[in-house]
Amino acid sequence: MAKITFVDVTLRDGNHTYRHQFTPEIVHATAAALDTAGVDIIEVGHGDGLGGSCLHVGRGPSTDRQLLEAACSAVKRAKVGILLLPGFGLFADLEMAAEVGVSVARIATHCTEADVTEQHLRRAKDLGMFTVGYLISAGMASPEQLAEQAQKLESYGADYVNLAESQGHLVPGEVAARIRAVRQAVKIPIGFHPHNNLGLAIGNILAAVDEGATFIDGSLKGFGGGAGNAQTEVAIAALKRAGHEVEADLFGIMDAADIFAQQVAPQPMPVIDNDSLLMGYANVYGGYIHPVRHAAETYRCDPRALVLRLGERKVVAAQEDVVIEEAQKLSCTSTN
Amino acid sequence: MAKITFVDVTLRDGNHTYRHQFTPEIVHATAAALDTAGVDIIEVGHGDGLGGSCLHVGRGPSTDRQLLEAACSAVKRAKVGILLLPGFGLFADLEMAAEVGVSVARIATHCTEADVTEQHLRRAKDLGMFTVGYLISAGMASPEQLAEQAQKLESYGADYVNLAESQGHLVPGEVAARIRAVRQAVKIPIGFHPHNNLGLAIGNILAAVDEGATFIDGSLKGFGGGAGNAQTEVAIAALKRAGHEVEADLFGIMDAADIFAQQVAPQPMPVIDNDSLLMGYANVYGGYIHPVRHAAETYRCDPRALVLRLGERKVVAAQEDVVIEEAQKLSCTSTN
Repeated sequence: MAKITFVDVTLRDGNHTYRHQFTPEIVHATAAALDTAGVDIIEVGHGDGLGGSCLHVGRGPSTDRQLLEAACSAVKRAKVGILLLPGFGLFADLEMAAEVGVSVARIATHCTEADVTEQHLRRAKDLGMFTVGYLISAGMASPEQLAEQAQKLESYGADYVNLAESQGHLVPGEVAARIRAVRQAVKIPIGFHPHNNLGLAIGNILAAVDEGATFIDGSLKGFGGGAGNAQTEVAIAALKRAGHEVEADLFGIMDAADIFAQQVAPQPMPVIDNDSLLMGYANVYGGYIHPVRHAAETYRCDPRALVLRLGERKVVAAQEDVVIEEAQKLSCTSTN
Repeated sequence: MAKITFVDVTLRDGNHTYRHQFTPEIVHATAAALDTAGVDIIEVGHGDGLGGSCLHVGRGPSTDRQLLEAACSAVKRAKVGILLLPGFGLFADLEMAAEVGVSVARIATHCTEADVTEQHLRRAKDLGMFTVGYLISAGMASPEQLAEQAQKLESYGADYVNLAESQGHLVPGEVAARIRAVRQAVKIPIGFHPHNNLGLAIGNILAAVDEGATFIDGSLKGFGGGAGNAQTEVAIAALKRAGHEVEADLFGIMDAADIFAQQVAPQPMPVIDNDSLLMGYANVYGGYIHPVRHAAETYRCDPRALVLRLGERKVVAAQEDVVIEEAQKLSCTSTN
């Protein structure tokens, strides 16, 4: 039975569900409730992390600083954290975060590109922060590849390595194999961030913890990209039921879920619709849904067949040209 | 890797979500889509099975016969099934079902009361039906108890035994232990019917199949009692991803989910709210939520504490007097 550090990402990943429109008021009320419930780390910001607010991925109504100040002023015991994708986020953003009281920095990149996190991990460390190497789309890499990337993150001084299964593609056995490979490769702790596209967010958390993961991500009401994250209040209940130790109180976290839902009403909870299900099945990043729809319409092909093709091509973010290429091919096939 | 027989219960368990108001039109359209998709067995009727339509649990707009005729006239290859709880359902109901073309009869009772299914199982068998012994609230019995009950069902001629984890309380390891115990006790196949109160419907299905379950229940869009069932389209995708063989086609079942959703629009999909989460955590049957709310208000006690007490008391259906007794006790405690 493991002792779990729970990382709630409602106020960061959940911002995707809310089209990045979280306000300082929403952040303050929710962070206070999470803190009262006993959650260990509260991640806050734009869905794409520090510096993410831009026209391309969605502009928020507030600055990163305003959101982080709202969170830091709301907590008594929890740590406030940020996510930073090098490129979106800069050193200056990290410095601002440290200045307002953020003490956890998760530096994120595609699962095979750990190299690009080195400078930011070291800078965050210099600023006195608890630092995390965060591997996006971890279901696109083999256990061996992830083990190698984790070793790099450890060598850059990361305090733990987080596997983010952004597409919700893996089944429990596949998650277990990845956690095991990383555990055998590094001495630092391991975290896991699931998505629910195949309805396995909670099942995969339990499999990850059974293999030694001790940092677990979730979000209230499951708010998050695609089919959403593991629902924090459900994950905490399931972890407790499975005999694991979680600091957060069950009634407290249920209260936090209610408070958050009231703040964002009438926004409904994420569900698994056919789009997110198919993206998870095919292991295609959720952001591709709009380019897929557009290309399928333009080239009159089956969008579902197109998603499967993209999965076979193992597209990563920002390869929208492949969508058009495959749509054209499918279009030819269907008219022949 | 297993070959799975998929049993879709949208048109029976999903009727709970729709307050038992399914019409022959909804049944016909949905059954046709499920049949086209390649689902093996389609269960149809009132949420509480044959004879369930009554003022106490909810009266439907159509007779059992009308719903079953709608389903039987819609299918070309799938079998149509019914659920029958002895007491609600009578021999005459079974005979009517057989007459209109129903070929699968699942005879259900509380997980420790297999005895009460014998007569109905034998009658269904005499009528030439494929018969199933169905153990409700299987998370309230130990693996050993379930093994013993399964042996009884086998001796009554059941073609398979179905463990229905009605409260969504179990974690995958607990499901595996129960399937294993039953597998070691009987020669007939084993089925599993999860609920999603702890977000583990799909994770528990994969655990059950890994231990040898070969009949799996689910419902389109997750419609079903409490936090809902395993979402059929998601379960089929996850089973395929895990390498198992399922006859149903993924795109076909996604189409069926859409067709069903259109039929019942604007009814939203079930989600895991705090009520269903707590009932699952405490292992208390979903039907208790209304008596709990009423008693908590009357006796001014915390409804959540009351649910936990009911879980400790291991209440089964129709013990509403215990709700009042425990509410009174909690009320005294809190005023002292």
